[in-house]
Amino acid sequence: MKKKSKKVNAAILIIGNEILSGRTQDKNVAFISKWLNLSCGISVNEVRIIPDVETIIIQNIKLLSKKYNYVFTTGGIGPTHDDITAQSISKAFSVKYKFHDEAFNILQKYYGKNNFNNGRKKMAKMPQGAKLIHNPSSAAPGFKIKNVLCLPGVPSILFSMIENCKKFLVKGSKVRSETLNIFTVESNISKELGLIQKKYKKYVDIGSYPFFRLGKIGVSIVSRSVYRKILIKVNKDLKKIIKNKKLKILKV
Amino acid sequence: MKKKSKKVNAAILIIGNEILSGRTQDKNVAFISKWLNLSCGISVNEVRIIPDVETIIIQNIKLLSKKYNYVFTTGGIGPTHDDITAQSISKAFSVKYKFHDEAFNILQKYYGKNNFNNGRKKMAKMPQGAKLIHNPSSAAPGFKIKNVLCLPGVPSILFSMIENCKKFLVKGSKVRSETLNIFTVESNISKELGLIQKKYKKYVDIGSYPFFRLGKIGVSIVSRSVYRKILIKVNKDLKKIIKNKKLKILKV
Repeated sequence: MKKKSKKVNAAILIIGNEILSGRTQDKNVAFISKWLNLSCGISVNEVRIIPDVETIIIQNIKLLSKKYNYVFTTGGIGPTHDDITAQSISKAFSVKYKFHDEAFNILQKYYGKNNFNNGRKKMAKMPQGAKLIHNPSSAAPGFKIKNVLCLPGVPSILFSMIENCKKFLVKGSKVRSETLNIFTVESNISKELGLIQKKYKKYVDIGSYPFFRLGKIGVSIVSRSVYRKILIKVNKDLKKIIKNKKLKILKV
Repeated sequence: MKKKSKKVNAAILIIGNEILSGRTQDKNVAFISKWLNLSCGISVNEVRIIPDVETIIIQNIKLLSKKYNYVFTTGGIGPTHDDITAQSISKAFSVKYKFHDEAFNILQKYYGKNNFNNGRKKMAKMPQGAKLIHNPSSAAPGFKIKNVLCLPGVPSILFSMIENCKKFLVKGSKVRSETLNIFTVESNISKELGLIQKKYKKYVDIGSYPFFRLGKIGVSIVSRSVYRKILIKVNKDLKKIIKNKKLKILKV
């Protein structure tokens, strides 16, 4: 290969009993993963969902921050007793858990001096040395400490903040993907797909994912690579197979 | 406490590049967690999402199967080259990866002898000693080996199979939950919630989760416990606070 790809990876750590219990459907993993991939060329290599328990948060932060270029956490940075992400991360990195001046000022201005109670003040406490991730929708900022970026759990708020993470991230090579949708079952094309994957195994990941549409069974064949030209070759090979099997590629 | 609660726990291991990349929104975590909790009294204590990579699957299966009473895997048991869950788990437990006679017969009958190609046969290969989890919707069975239960990734198929897992599970004490929804912000009630959590900390988990409804901000207060009577007490205390704050409990 002429061009060398630059691999940058990340882990996502979802902190919250409500996700583990199934009460709340997580939407943050798919959103963060897609954004990291498309906007920053960063691949998410692992996700963990854990409860609001200090020792477990500490253990996971220590491990994941060593193993991956970046760790994104969601959840546990609000004003209530079960919001313990910031103090747990302070302990994980052995730094003080204290008021962040800028965060304190932002929150005091937002709530007004008379309504700035202790719960609200708590949201200005962070690991010493943290940098703010600004929150355009509800003021309370996220923060970045070492290679860990902490975001809130509420999806709409997280979504509004994600662009403010960009300045903290080193970009990697963008992973491109091509999808071919056909009406068939996986087992009808599995042998041929396996052969193509083998041929390009160093440069492309080919996945096949069943779907149901209009009462019929179909398969999405997804090829992913940082090399655009190879992706074009793979797509040609795939189209040949599809033609030989007398199958049709769906428009959307 | 008079009655001792029986704690049974589980981990969920989601195997699949399509979930990690954000291409596919996971729906299995919330479904399995809720089902385990409501139907079996089993709490999910950890979830991991990992790629279709053999060494990573092996490592996670070894670790999670030691750490939790049960491990549920989803994904990677189909007919294509990227479906490597069964062979990876065989390696994790150092058992042979071979045809399961009953699974072979089920699939041969389903597809018919003439259409039973190698991709389809692959779905009958499992770790030696595995027991089948029958699949009423598309024939290809899941399996259980030691304390690991393997299910497919397609939600509708997984949902149709979940009841067939029950016979392999020892039940725990059911965790009950009570939810109070009010229009307010978390920081308005965080102090009082913290005090109630402290009072009952051994027996109840209280979480608070913001929501948006009809253009207004609200909070769901969720109390979870295996002790029904204590849950009633907690709810009384919570209602007192809500009344004192002149807030109203929403009907739904």
